[in-house]
Amino acid sequence: MSFTQIEYGVTDGIATLTLNRPERLNAFTFTMRSELIDAFDRADADDSVRAVVVTGAGRAFCAGADLGGGGETFGRADDGRSESVDGAPRDGGGTVALRIAASLKPVIGAINGAAVGVGVTMTLPMDIRIAADGARFGFVFARRGIVTEAASSWFLPRIVGISQAMEWAATGRLFPAAEALEGRLVSRVCPADELLPAAYALAREIADNTSGVSVAAIRRLMWSGLSAASPWEAHAADSRLMAELGGAADAVEGVTSFLEKRPARFTMKVSEADVPFWPANPYGD
Amino acid sequence: MSFTQIEYGVTDGIATLTLNRPERLNAFTFTMRSELIDAFDRADADDSVRAVVVTGAGRAFCAGADLGGGGETFGRADDGRSESVDGAPRDGGGTVALRIAASLKPVIGAINGAAVGVGVTMTLPMDIRIAADGARFGFVFARRGIVTEAASSWFLPRIVGISQAMEWAATGRLFPAAEALEGRLVSRVCPADELLPAAYALAREIADNTSGVSVAAIRRLMWSGLSAASPWEAHAADSRLMAELGGAADAVEGVTSFLEKRPARFTMKVSEADVPFWPANPYGD
Amino acid sequence: MSFTQIEYGVTDGIATLTLNRPERLNAFTFTMRSELIDAFDRADADDSVRAVVVTGAGRAFCAGADLGGGGETFGRADDGRSESVDGAPRDGGGTVALRIAASLKPVIGAINGAAVGVGVTMTLPMDIRIAADGARFGFVFARRGIVTEAASSWFLPRIVGISQAMEWAATGRLFPAAEALEGRLVSRVCPADELLPAAYALAREIADNTSGVSVAAIRRLMWSGLSAASPWEAHAADSRLMAELGGAADAVEGVTSFLEKRPARFTMKVSEADVPFWPANPYGD
Repeated sequence: MSFTQIEYGVTDGIATLTLNRPERLNAFTFTMRSELIDAFDRADADDSVRAVVVTGAGRAFCAGADLGGGGETFGRADDGRSESVDGAPRDGGGTVALRIAASLKPVIGAINGAAVGVGVTMTLPMDIRIAADGARFGFVFARRGIVTEAASSWFLPRIVGISQAMEWAATGRLFPAAEALEGRLVSRVCPADELLPAAYALAREIADNTSGVSVAAIRRLMWSGLSAASPWEAHAADSRLMAELGGAADAVEGVTSFLEKRPARFTMKVSEADVPFWPANPYGD
Repeated sequence: MSFTQIEYGVTDGIATLTLNRPERLNAFTFTMRSELIDAFDRADADDSVRAVVVTGAGRAFCAGADLGGGGETFGRADDGRSESVDGAPRDGGGTVALRIAASLKPVIGAINGAAVGVGVTMTLPMDIRIAADGARFGFVFARRGIVTEAASSWFLPRIVGISQAMEWAATGRLFPAAEALEGRLVSRVCPADELLPAAYALAREIADNTSGVSVAAIRRLMWSGLSAASPWEAHAADSRLMAELGGAADAVEGVTSFLEKRPARFTMKVSEADVPFWPANPYGD
Repeated sequence: MSFTQIEYGVTDGIATLTLNRPERLNAFTFTMRSELIDAFDRADADDSVRAVVVTGAGRAFCAGADLGGGGETFGRADDGRSESVDGAPRDGGGTVALRIAASLKPVIGAINGAAVGVGVTMTLPMDIRIAADGARFGFVFARRGIVTEAASSWFLPRIVGISQAMEWAATGRLFPAAEALEGRLVSRVCPADELLPAAYALAREIADNTSGVSVAAIRRLMWSGLSAASPWEAHAADSRLMAELGGAADAVEGVTSFLEKRPARFTMKVSEADVPFWPANPYGD
């Protein structure tokens, strides 16, 4: 499996996924869509990967959908993937966003430059977003005559609140990293040369201290908890997972190492764990 | 259609709706309720209206329910509108709040003075709230022996978080604009004479740069997304709307104008667009 | 009813519930679980109690589950309480969290020291959390090989946002009070000797100014509103409660006392009010 519009590599337990069309400001295409989905499949299947960092090559993160098709860009037929939802071709950004949301590995967005349109909405299902101080953002859909996509109407108001979400989406304005930080779209802004080190430091904090099975289960619990109808659903999931994992090897090691005041050596594999898939697709395709 | 307790006017694509009983601090009545609903119907039906600004005449925004009826105020029979929900007369503030939530045009609250009781809960379904520095707020219901209304138990914890919501609602305290800003009830506080200019500047940013059909669809997507059971619901709605609008005139113009580096001239009409109604009333009345 | 691992006392309308195993940093046990649930039952049944303050004896708030059982701690069988959910023994922290969530009295967490594991997740269904400046926090589950529990996957992302929730839960890091404040896990940080006075001042603000029936109904409305599928559910609940309480004694007194500019003397009893139970348990046990 080789990629043409992204790069994917794994070092010391951390996968780096780089949007890689710098000559087009990493504009989003059908090919990039497929490659992103495949890369998250690969990261999930690789037990050596404990966290995923997503960034962009060159000066942009992702400038949005590639508009090389001109005015017909958003009216073009699908790329032939047969998926549809309620009879309409599945929105391409949404296929990526839902795949990221379902990741078994925590995902850190390192937004190095412009993140516009699908370039920003694709980051919403990532767990943590940090940005270079020169990055800028835009939910520009209303300026292009289309709508917010990539399931951002579910993610964005839950991340930044409905008022901030509507202000950005209704004006379609471009805004700088400082406004993204103030509005809680990103949790940190730093100089460009400190961006990847900061992302990797977070990834290391996860990789060096925790059970991968725990983190996978927690990630699914948290995102599905945000979607759950009531805390009783969360309680049922907790009870089942505690019954399943509470007596397993990583829990024994986690408690024992803590009592012995030594680093834990977790041995369970995410690929062999039974972590419920989220989000369940109610449309069955 | 003429109003007696509110004023309604449209200038340069922006509707201004002014609560207008200054001698009673714009206290809320059955008549005001009906007029507010009618005004939002009018704004939605008028394709020249791109945004709605809501403010109050005189020194208050809205001091709450008119208590001229004395101790029996909240026990009075309904005003004869036949609507009921689950057998109870519909809460009056809720009829307004749900109408504002369903608006096709973005709504900006310019809170010029006291916003207390229904005077503040009616602002929660507005997209953006800004306040004059002399404004004050109060979810005073527990001090009057009644409950938070206008569906504020749905809106408020989603806007300011459950902890802030409970602190304000359980104490029933009056609080100043600075506390409203700190608690994210409003996004900006400014001197009184800069309040309406700031509201109009936001409205202009929307009116001058975006497709009205896009904004109407986005507003419905965002608010229903906040209510959606899962991101899959959002994805289905996105996919349907992208299939419908992606090849339509405003999308062609939006992309073409961007590529030509010129302002867009959007021509589609909200009144002719098929934007799903939100929030759907599960009670059927 | 006497307690062995907590203390419970009522003074001037405010119940204080103190986790009381200071020699074990108030570590959580099956006994403590049962006593906490019983204490909240007692507070709800006592009409003299207007608010509940929860704190810890000694230097910790609660250091988490008691790990005296060693590596098998989380794999141990249940304590014999027959409750289960979907076939698994009910997670112990969750039984406490759901009981606190259903409290008829507002609950204020006064976090005096370490709040780790279930020691912090049990505070999430409290309405307000304030902390001493020496307190520290940790969602350490991934470092122990288990998962976030106590329905925290429902509560935490709604309180601090999914990004902050995932950063704390995926790293499992310990963090100081300042980070808890910045991340909106607590609403105030103060010197240790000002913590309980601040908690009692909040409780007094509620007890001295409001109707207990109003506050009980509002608490249920807000938490169930956060869980409601749409604002229409909130509107239906509002309409029913306004029909029920709008003409009752506390509403008459609340409005009359306001018009007469005198303190209100509310007389209705929470124990006699019909406030819908929340959260309804869909599992029926």
